[in-house]
Order: sequence, then structure tokens, then C-alpha cells
Amino acid sequence: MVAAQPIPVAIYGIGPIGAEITKLILTKPWLELVSAVDIDTAKIGRDIGDLIGSHKVGVAVTPEITNKPTVICHSTGSRLRDVEGQLKALLGARSHVVSTCEELSFPLDHQIRERLEQTARAANVALLGTGVNPGFVMDKLPLTLTAVCQQIESVTIVRIQNASTRREPLQRKVGAGMTVDEFRAAVDAGKIKHMGLRESLMLVGSGLGIEFNSVSDEKIEPIVAKREVVTQYLKVAPGQVAGVHQTIDGKGRINVSLELQMYVGAEDVAADRVIVKGVPDLELVIKGGVHGDRATAAMVVNAIPRVIAAHPGVLTMDDIPVSFR
Amino acid sequence: MVAAQPIPVAIYGIGPIGAEITKLILTKPWLELVSAVDIDTAKIGRDIGDLIGSHKVGVAVTPEITNKPTVICHSTGSRLRDVEGQLKALLGARSHVVSTCEELSFPLDHQIRERLEQTARAANVALLGTGVNPGFVMDKLPLTLTAVCQQIESVTIVRIQNASTRREPLQRKVGAGMTVDEFRAAVDAGKIKHMGLRESLMLVGSGLGIEFNSVSDEKIEPIVAKREVVTQYLKVAPGQVAGVHQTIDGKGRINVSLELQMYVGAEDVAADRVIVKGVPDLELVIKGGVHGDRATAAMVVNAIPRVIAAHPGVLTMDDIPVSFR
Repeated sequence: MVAAQPIPVAIYGIGPIGAEITKLILTKPWLELVSAVDIDTAKIGRDIGDLIGSHKVGVAVTPEITNKPTVICHSTGSRLRDVEGQLKALLGARSHVVSTCEELSFPLDHQIRERLEQTARAANVALLGTGVNPGFVMDKLPLTLTAVCQQIESVTIVRIQNASTRREPLQRKVGAGMTVDEFRAAVDAGKIKHMGLRESLMLVGSGLGIEFNSVSDEKIEPIVAKREVVTQYLKVAPGQVAGVHQTIDGKGRINVSLELQMYVGAEDVAADRVIVKGVPDLELVIKGGVHGDRATAAMVVNAIPRVIAAHPGVLTMDDIPVSFR
Repeated sequence: MVAAQPIPVAIYGIGPIGAEITKLILTKPWLELVSAVDIDTAKIGRDIGDLIGSHKVGVAVTPEITNKPTVICHSTGSRLRDVEGQLKALLGARSHVVSTCEELSFPLDHQIRERLEQTARAANVALLGTGVNPGFVMDKLPLTLTAVCQQIESVTIVRIQNASTRREPLQRKVGAGMTVDEFRAAVDAGKIKHMGLRESLMLVGSGLGIEFNSVSDEKIEPIVAKREVVTQYLKVAPGQVAGVHQTIDGKGRINVSLELQMYVGAEDVAADRVIVKGVPDLELVIKGGVHGDRATAAMVVNAIPRVIAAHPGVLTMDDIPVSFR
């Protein structure tokens, strides 16, 4: 049920995802935006509604949190080491934090995890890393599906996203329009990599109650266009790169493999798929797949009441139930 | 992760589902069966392993719980009024209870719910009604899926089960082999009805944070065989009833409809399907559908660690995360 008083929330970081989260917050009567933070001096002082192309809200962007929100939606970076300081400061001021930081979805750096855990517990608040991927389609959804299994041999998770429907930076980020050589150089330079695939794998393993005997390296390969692909932002010739094919797997009592394909021109094959070999066998398909940016904003906002209700500390998506709110 | 010490558990009620739950418990190293209860004098005194066709366990069936289990798996009836006394006694003795009682999945009788809530809280234990349906495919799974939606207009949940693969009592219970007149008489006599559909609908509404303006009656119609269907147990001639088609829907800010088809000869169309109209639209399909009895036992057993970790009181599936364990 909807709370009688709206929950005071803040947005921390107003990039493309932060703006999408903010727009969604403004549609929810059970939330009240009380603070909007960004370090960009071009944004500071502006009304957050104007900034994101919505109606005027009466909340100006500030460089620090104001009005002590109950929950802060954090969206500034993908790497734990880049956001640890921000998260500790926000938690230390006794706000819950829901973050899109991919590495936070299942913190693999145990020292950072422990420091965040101590800060959150001392302040009696919770911290969650979530999104659509990592956060849902390749971890939370497969884990939830496995609840009807008596025994499991393997879990195969395949996400094929049509990058043609995504924003330009994402199309560039998957390498669309590059030559294969350019793509490989960009991979070697760390410029082409979907963040969070390893975290999703480890979250699935943890949720299933297993420890993998071995975990593969992440393989990042080009998907080469067989035909010309034209999007709103770019053109890919046959033989050029259409996008990225990234995989990782863990072997153990249960084998888990994750395969992510993000490329332009994937209209006909885009889908999210989970295949469980076990008792019973299961095959789940989401036709067309869950769209990335919109779903990430939704997941962050929908997680808010669940994070408030959870125990203090560093949470993963395996610690909370979720639904639309 | 798996607990160092196995969790002491009991089975209360050793019918077909209770036996399936027991078999599964015996395969889990993180569980230890310490008590097995049934009121049937033909079962009392027998080794539970012998009784269910498994290896000897060293636990004799008794008419009352012994050895104070941490969690009791309860499977004796579908109706709250029939099991309230049992549940209160089990909770009062300070065991958590996971039950297959369909009406417990979302208790609609507020007086019974309140009495169970008080008993559970006083004893500092939790009570959960679960299974595959109600408990998962038509409530928990759709709710989980909606977490990636920004806005929702409607949720359509369709489960088509092939009764040909199910045990004989279930094939009889859906009316397979009856004439249409016999079927309608059986419906009027309350003999043909899948329990829990209304509970699933109300659980979905609750999870979405809405109250329906109106909820339809449950409609129970025959599915008439167009061709002869032969199963291991019975034969259905063309024009005879192959099974049941049961529907219910709630109208409100979000419209939710549930449709259950259970009939023999549904090999080619069996599936679980969730269709969400919203932002984004979603269509999830589980090919072939999740098999009922096996999945119910799995859901009960997999819920055990989640119920132990939850807050005391009457839980629904919307209160806990779930996965295989």
C-alpha cells in the first residue's frame, strides 16, 4: 500500500540515468524529491525540472545533499573505488542509498564492501546496487525463477539487446561502426566493456548457495555486421562491428553461464532468456528483451520501499523482494 | 551460503504433496528431517522413508510434532478455516511454518489472518503460504517482473497446464472425461475449482501497491475436447470435458487478470505467460509451463531459509526474495 506521507528522496548525479530516475520520481505520488545534486557547475543552481526537460519542481541543483532525504538515488559511476567516498558520506548522514554503480550490485572488493557495511550499519541504513543489468535480467530474475526447482545442473542466461533502440553513447560504447581492429584495440584499452557481468554471475552463485570452483575470464568479442545497419546516430557497413559479445561462466556444483550480446540491428533476435537444466527444466523468454535505461530507472525507484523495509547494511538484489510500486 | 549446521525441519501432513516435500528434504544436506506427522493410523509408526518409497530415515511418523523443528512444512488442507487450529498450535510451539494451504498465500479472512499474526508474533516466528500456484507463477513471478516497469496499465497472467502430465486425482479434479452437464453440476457443488486464484490476484494487487475498485467473481468453465485425448489414467472423447478454464480479474488504477487453463491434451500450448502493458511493455513466457507438484515441493523447501531470515508474523511471497537453495 502507498504510504500516507510521501518518502523524501534525493537524486545524486544527474547524467542520462540520473535524469531518467528523476523524471520517474516526479511521477510517483508516494515520493517527494527534496534534493538534487551534481558537481557540474553548469547544472548547479538550475531547477531540476528545467534541467531534465520536465515541469518546474522548485528544487535547485546543489553540490551537496540538502533536506535530509530518507533515500538517495545515486548514479555517478560504475566502479566502487570511484564512488566509495560518496557512498560513505551519504550513508554516514543516515540516508538509505540505492545506486546504479554496477560494481556495487555484488561488491567483489571485500575491503570496500566491509567499509561500506560498517558505515551503513553504524548509521542504521541500507545500501543497494541495482539496475536492469546488473540488478535484474541476468541475476535477480534468473534467481527468482530457480525457486521452483528441486535440483539444478546448470543455469544459462542470455541477453540479446538491440542497441539500435538505445542512446548514442551506448551505441558507440558497444563499438558499433568500428573496424574489428579498432574494436580489439578499444577492448584492450578497457573502453569496450559492459560493467557488472562478473558481479551478476557471482550474485547468482551466492543466491543459489554455491561457491564456484572456477570462474572464467570475461571474454569480449566483436559481433560483425553481415549487412548494412543504419541507426538514428550511425551507420555500420558489412564487415564492420555492430556491437559486443561478452561472456563469463562459473563452474561448480551448478554451472552458471552468462552471455550478453549488445549490437545494432538485433531487432529480430532481441530477447532475455534463462534456461535451467534441472528438476524441472525451465526456459523463460522475455520477447524483445527488457529495455536498458528505462528499466534501470524503474528498478531504482521500485526498490526504494524495499530498501527502507530491509535490514541495515550492504544489500544485494538477492536480499529483497521487488515489484512495481 | 549453506549453513554449517543443518536446519531441523518437520513435515506435517504426508499426502501426495507432503510426500514430495519430504523426498526433497531428504536430498538437501542443509536440512535435517527431525519429525514427520500424519493423523492416518495406517501411517503412524512407520519409518517416513519407507512410507514415501525412499531409503530408511530413522524417523517414525507420529501424530504430533517431536524434536522441536526450526521450520515445519505443513501440507494438510486448502482452506484457512480447516488449518487455522493446526497452524496456531505449530506456531505457538515456536516453529516457523511454510504451508501449501492455498488460502494462506494471501489470507482474505481478516479475522483468521489477525489471529495467526498475533500467534506468530507472540512466538517470534513466521508463517508463509506458498507453492507454485498460488505462490509463484501467477503472483510472485509476475510481481517480480513488474519491478522493471516505470508505469503499468495492465498485467495479464495466463497459465496453461497440460493435465496429461499430472497425477490422476488432478486429472479427475479438472473434470477430464465428464460431460459438460456433469462438469457444471460439479462446479455448482464446489467440486471443480482451482484454489488460490483469488488469493493470487489480491497478492498481485497488494504487491503493486494498489487497491482494486472492483474484483470479478471467479468464472469456471469447461474446456471441451475437440479430439480424443488419452492419458495414463483416462480417456476423453470429443465433446467431453478435457479440463477447466478459470478466470478472475481486478479493475483499478492497474487492471490485473488471471486466466488458468488446466486440461488434458494441452501438450502443444502449455505455458506460463505474463503480459504487462506499460513502460516498457513486457511479455514473459515459460515454455511448457512450470510443472505443478514438483515445483510446489521445491518452492516450499527453497523458501525455508528465506522464512527464517524474515520478520515474524504472517508473510506473503511478496515479503521475501526467493531462489533455489
